[in-house]
Amino acid sequence: MASKKQIRVGMVGYRLMGRAHSHAYRDVPFYFNPDVEPRLQAIAGRDEESTKAAADKMGWESWETDWRRLIEREDIDLIDIVTPNNTHADIAIAAADAGKHVFCEKPLAMSLNEAKRMLEAVNRTGVTHMICHNYRFSPAVQYAKKLIDEGRLGKIYHMRATFLQDWLMDPEFPLIWRLKKEVSGGGTLSDLGAHIIDLARFLVGEFHEVAGMMETFVKKRPLGTMTNNLKGQIQSDQWGEVTVDDATMFLARFHNGAIGTFEASRFSRGNRAGNRFEINGEKGSIRWDMENLNNLHVYLEEDEPGLQGFRTINCTEESHPFAGSYWPAGHILGYEHTFVNIVFRLMDGIAQGTSPEPNFADGVKNQAVLEAVEQSAEKRGWIEIPD
Amino acid sequence: MASKKQIRVGMVGYRLMGRAHSHAYRDVPFYFNPDVEPRLQAIAGRDEESTKAAADKMGWESWETDWRRLIEREDIDLIDIVTPNNTHADIAIAAADAGKHVFCEKPLAMSLNEAKRMLEAVNRTGVTHMICHNYRFSPAVQYAKKLIDEGRLGKIYHMRATFLQDWLMDPEFPLIWRLKKEVSGGGTLSDLGAHIIDLARFLVGEFHEVAGMMETFVKKRPLGTMTNNLKGQIQSDQWGEVTVDDATMFLARFHNGAIGTFEASRFSRGNRAGNRFEINGEKGSIRWDMENLNNLHVYLEEDEPGLQGFRTINCTEESHPFAGSYWPAGHILGYEHTFVNIVFRLMDGIAQGTSPEPNFADGVKNQAVLEAVEQSAEKRGWIEIPD
Amino acid sequence: MASKKQIRVGMVGYRLMGRAHSHAYRDVPFYFNPDVEPRLQAIAGRDEESTKAAADKMGWESWETDWRRLIEREDIDLIDIVTPNNTHADIAIAAADAGKHVFCEKPLAMSLNEAKRMLEAVNRTGVTHMICHNYRFSPAVQYAKKLIDEGRLGKIYHMRATFLQDWLMDPEFPLIWRLKKEVSGGGTLSDLGAHIIDLARFLVGEFHEVAGMMETFVKKRPLGTMTNNLKGQIQSDQWGEVTVDDATMFLARFHNGAIGTFEASRFSRGNRAGNRFEINGEKGSIRWDMENLNNLHVYLEEDEPGLQGFRTINCTEESHPFAGSYWPAGHILGYEHTFVNIVFRLMDGIAQGTSPEPNFADGVKNQAVLEAVEQSAEKRGWIEIPD
Amino acid sequence: MASKKQIRVGMVGYRLMGRAHSHAYRDVPFYFNPDVEPRLQAIAGRDEESTKAAADKMGWESWETDWRRLIEREDIDLIDIVTPNNTHADIAIAAADAGKHVFCEKPLAMSLNEAKRMLEAVNRTGVTHMICHNYRFSPAVQYAKKLIDEGRLGKIYHMRATFLQDWLMDPEFPLIWRLKKEVSGGGTLSDLGAHIIDLARFLVGEFHEVAGMMETFVKKRPLGTMTNNLKGQIQSDQWGEVTVDDATMFLARFHNGAIGTFEASRFSRGNRAGNRFEINGEKGSIRWDMENLNNLHVYLEEDEPGLQGFRTINCTEESHPFAGSYWPAGHILGYEHTFVNIVFRLMDGIAQGTSPEPNFADGVKNQAVLEAVEQSAEKRGWIEIPD
Repeated sequence: MASKKQIRVGMVGYRLMGRAHSHAYRDVPFYFNPDVEPRLQAIAGRDEESTKAAADKMGWESWETDWRRLIEREDIDLIDIVTPNNTHADIAIAAADAGKHVFCEKPLAMSLNEAKRMLEAVNRTGVTHMICHNYRFSPAVQYAKKLIDEGRLGKIYHMRATFLQDWLMDPEFPLIWRLKKEVSGGGTLSDLGAHIIDLARFLVGEFHEVAGMMETFVKKRPLGTMTNNLKGQIQSDQWGEVTVDDATMFLARFHNGAIGTFEASRFSRGNRAGNRFEINGEKGSIRWDMENLNNLHVYLEEDEPGLQGFRTINCTEESHPFAGSYWPAGHILGYEHTFVNIVFRLMDGIAQGTSPEPNFADGVKNQAVLEAVEQSAEKRGWIEIPD
Repeated sequence: MASKKQIRVGMVGYRLMGRAHSHAYRDVPFYFNPDVEPRLQAIAGRDEESTKAAADKMGWESWETDWRRLIEREDIDLIDIVTPNNTHADIAIAAADAGKHVFCEKPLAMSLNEAKRMLEAVNRTGVTHMICHNYRFSPAVQYAKKLIDEGRLGKIYHMRATFLQDWLMDPEFPLIWRLKKEVSGGGTLSDLGAHIIDLARFLVGEFHEVAGMMETFVKKRPLGTMTNNLKGQIQSDQWGEVTVDDATMFLARFHNGAIGTFEASRFSRGNRAGNRFEINGEKGSIRWDMENLNNLHVYLEEDEPGLQGFRTINCTEESHPFAGSYWPAGHILGYEHTFVNIVFRLMDGIAQGTSPEPNFADGVKNQAVLEAVEQSAEKRGWIEIPD
Repeated sequence: MASKKQIRVGMVGYRLMGRAHSHAYRDVPFYFNPDVEPRLQAIAGRDEESTKAAADKMGWESWETDWRRLIEREDIDLIDIVTPNNTHADIAIAAADAGKHVFCEKPLAMSLNEAKRMLEAVNRTGVTHMICHNYRFSPAVQYAKKLIDEGRLGKIYHMRATFLQDWLMDPEFPLIWRLKKEVSGGGTLSDLGAHIIDLARFLVGEFHEVAGMMETFVKKRPLGTMTNNLKGQIQSDQWGEVTVDDATMFLARFHNGAIGTFEASRFSRGNRAGNRFEINGEKGSIRWDMENLNNLHVYLEEDEPGLQGFRTINCTEESHPFAGSYWPAGHILGYEHTFVNIVFRLMDGIAQGTSPEPNFADGVKNQAVLEAVEQSAEKRGWIEIPD
Repeated sequence: MASKKQIRVGMVGYRLMGRAHSHAYRDVPFYFNPDVEPRLQAIAGRDEESTKAAADKMGWESWETDWRRLIEREDIDLIDIVTPNNTHADIAIAAADAGKHVFCEKPLAMSLNEAKRMLEAVNRTGVTHMICHNYRFSPAVQYAKKLIDEGRLGKIYHMRATFLQDWLMDPEFPLIWRLKKEVSGGGTLSDLGAHIIDLARFLVGEFHEVAGMMETFVKKRPLGTMTNNLKGQIQSDQWGEVTVDDATMFLARFHNGAIGTFEASRFSRGNRAGNRFEINGEKGSIRWDMENLNNLHVYLEEDEPGLQGFRTINCTEESHPFAGSYWPAGHILGYEHTFVNIVFRLMDGIAQGTSPEPNFADGVKNQAVLEAVEQSAEKRGWIEIPD
């Protein structure tokens, strides 16, 4: 271990996603053999006490109370951004300008323009950059990609994808930052929709045009904050306006002729993490559901008559991407392993001087779709995605 | 049996749907105790030999080679229409004018105007009328309706529904009547979409506006005909143009504020009969899939924490609508029983002089949605459903 | 229809199984083209009023109040026995002696000796005979048989089968005939166990030896009777002793070297009709569950690495036995169709002068296993099945 | 972190289970707040090079080539035993005698007597001891236990449990140590059966008597060794005798009157990790399957008629044991978290001077059942479990 080059990480933020990333940095060298290894060097947060506590808890060697300090420190190679969306651009651009690699949570930015500025910054300085669309890195989704790339599904006709949750259906759940457009840049669409847009771009291809509808079912909420694991705490008897969508649906046409339906909602009872898709091609179909993320359901028309049906494949075999590095077949993985896998890929990119997908260019394209959906909802018609 | 009033049925057409209806007439008195009982009096078809053979096979007492003869016959009380869509209006209006009850396959008509003319006819003469949206009559769907009506799901936020098939994906599957707009009035939307629109109206409520997209993936096909069970036979080396959609998707807003995504496709590999929906309400959710039509999946937020999850309910208990008339719990029903149940309801309507839902008024409303979806696809924007 | 030879059926008994058989006779000519066709000629029951009502309801042309009259009638070709088990032998032997074909509900007899006498009778007079193990005739089970016979699973190593119900768990459910050994000949083992023994013999082969355990959880019950669909009615304030098992489990070794676990229970909450099995062979495995009886789950080791997994096959395709005679693929069948299929096979047998399996010889072999399980439970050790 | 007492672990062995344990020690302080924290102090293995490599890879601070050295070292508080079964007793007893806590892989010993000697040793010196039956610690299984303890299932009638695998079905898979009785102490029964016996004791109660059958389908294999993740490597052209069972089935009666079927097999195609059970009680039932280990399926008779059915509960909510320390609801856990949870419990035990269950007393009771099953198979009858 000692002989490998270490990539000294400075992470800005430390809550839910900070936990997921921290754990991934710890696990990558255990499960994989990357050419370079992450070192949990420092985290930054505004509140000294809780930042220090988080650093201790998660195994970080030091902490700062201003993210700018992380950028200044010479013992930091990689800046990891897990803060609210309205801070992504400043941090990422500053990091790139300081010659540090950047790993950023999704959505990349508050707007398409901001996203483009971020991409320009990383391109200008040549650092490695990635955006954390972790669901791509479930072995089942990676295997789906492999099947599609090999032509096993043939020409793609349809995708239908949802990301459904129900954690803020209570009308008295507080007005957390995710519900304020000036902080989050967007609501359910940008939080959950961004993930299924990424899966669509990964598996089907680039979007050509979209037509969407956005809805806010609960328009005012008590002021308050998020605690952890998607729980909220009311902190005032004042109420404020929800300035983002509770649910967004859209139709889409892809450049390759496929068409699809997409839906992101936080008002879907019983769906804790309903990130699901089905893709239908000329020769086969696949289905996936994050709540049983190890399973890929695959239908192949080439199967002999009588034996045609969706196979439930537990993607924990050596033949499934990433899976062979963990446990024997049938011994399932969880949510956190999607982060371990993407961080392994990030380390690879840094070692080789590349920016593995999904990187900031993907972030820009994702943002273009998000923005087009929003515009289409306002215009009540179709919007083409700009190149 | 002898003492009950008999409703003498005259059925026009005798292929796939004719078989389903015939079987239902035979089974209703076996499973239920309707006040009046259907009698398989006569069928009509253009080809004498095959009409006679069908009558023999399915247990009909007589046959005609012109449907107008059925209308003229005094020993016919109910006209059942299972012919291609471009003949529905003429037959139904003639039947109503002759004072005969009418049971018509879906979609009701070739256009909204035609549907309205049919409704006027049955209203004018006061006969009983129903449209055969049989999926409403699955015990599981009936039970879903009961739960929704009782408020168990609370305010409805979302519906997502699909009807997916794959039987004509082969580009050399022939140009059957369903693919010619002048005969069918529409393609996948009117054939399959009509069913999920009906389920939406039944379970969620009336549509307010829609925005759709229609696609024809295979634009030319060899001339040919349908044999049975969704198989085709090429009959020429000439090719003709497909004038209907292979797939249609649309977004919808309901009058009660719910929103939904809808998709009908015949290009979804592995989906033989993917008639599925999920409905999310304030207090609960339900899911249903025609390929396992006995099961209703129900989530109730009122369940105590820890015990919350979708229940898989095999709707074959005495507490489930219609189910108690068949077999012990766990002994499942099939596709054909949805027809038995709707025909039982039809007999009830005739006995009581009413037109149980779904009737021609439902057919008109359904047609209005179909037409609005088509217009929205042309206009590439939203279309309100006329009242 | 008129030109085919009619097989005039006389059915003794008319309750739950009588209903299932009656419906099958009505449906066979509708769905199939047997060389001979059943005619619902007469039923027999002790109570005149309810026998007459049943005949009317189910479409039988006449009735008798003594089953011996059915045997005497010259206009009866086939005797169908759906009475309590202690009457099977007398009726079947009398029928055979009168030269009538016999179709008998399971279990065949009260004992192995009685079963053998029945087999001797039908063999002596050369009539067609079958035992109604209807689950063999689910298209999914028939397809499983086909796969096994073709060697797709290779050498069989394991079977595990259950038939679990929960309808008499209430300690105050009455002491119906099925709970009295002198009428039923046995309890859960002979009622439900007989079915899974038949499936095992059909799919795996002959039993070599068994070791079982039998348990009666509720030992006394109020006197009463069965109404319909597995419901009971208390008819007295007296209580009587349950003289049969509530649950039986046994281990088995087959002649071909396979081994298996078997369990029949009426005390398994939530299992309404938990007739399920899994079979593991050298090259593949299958799973089936009566509560979703259309689906067969098939695993094939020959599938390429990565794509290995159980396929969920909806056995409603033309390539699945019997299924092509019903509806298009994906349009599911129910419990009652297993009876339609077995009656179609019975008609075939009568037409050709054979006794299709499962016939009385299968009934004898089944009874031998039942008896061996019972002996093994008493002896608390292994018992070989006599040849 | 620094201020907590550290428990310095010395682990003997480092292959598959060593990896699972090592990872758990690393993760416990990240996810939980134990009063004492594990420190990865040293591992021991016979081959210097691979031991050193394993220590480096998994983050251990030092290594030894003789386990006795670990016992001697004063900087070791806890001995963790992940070696072949024939070494457990020597190591555990030496560790206990040296006053070190002991955590031992299952099965505890080669025989009941040996297990008892191990229990005497830990009792004599008062160290904390546990056996690694990790499946108890899936949140879903822990929640099942809670439901049962609260009486939600009422009196238990049935358990049926299997642990099915298929990784050594190839007749040319080598004769690894697990297939030699002198090293493993037993085959599939002691490897897989031990786990389901533990789940049965945990959830249902103590075994009263058993009747089993053991089978070795492939009796000779080429000499060879195990690589990793259940793969094998042939190392010779000589073949040796398999001296353990490939599959074992047994019937059981529990002290509380429940009865059950149990089966462990490595010859069940398509079952990679088929560790499954169903438990039926008076008032409800539960089902669990390790291949989707987050889900518990629960049926409650108290549910109102119509709404009765098995709920699929994704046990990732705060209300589910252990789950609240990880991720938001619906974000699933994997196999490795069962080890994190048991090690957290172990740390608790050490902090409080107790030996949480399952401890060596459980190991003894488990061994008593294993031995009784083996004896019953030889005797071909029932064997009572000694107290």
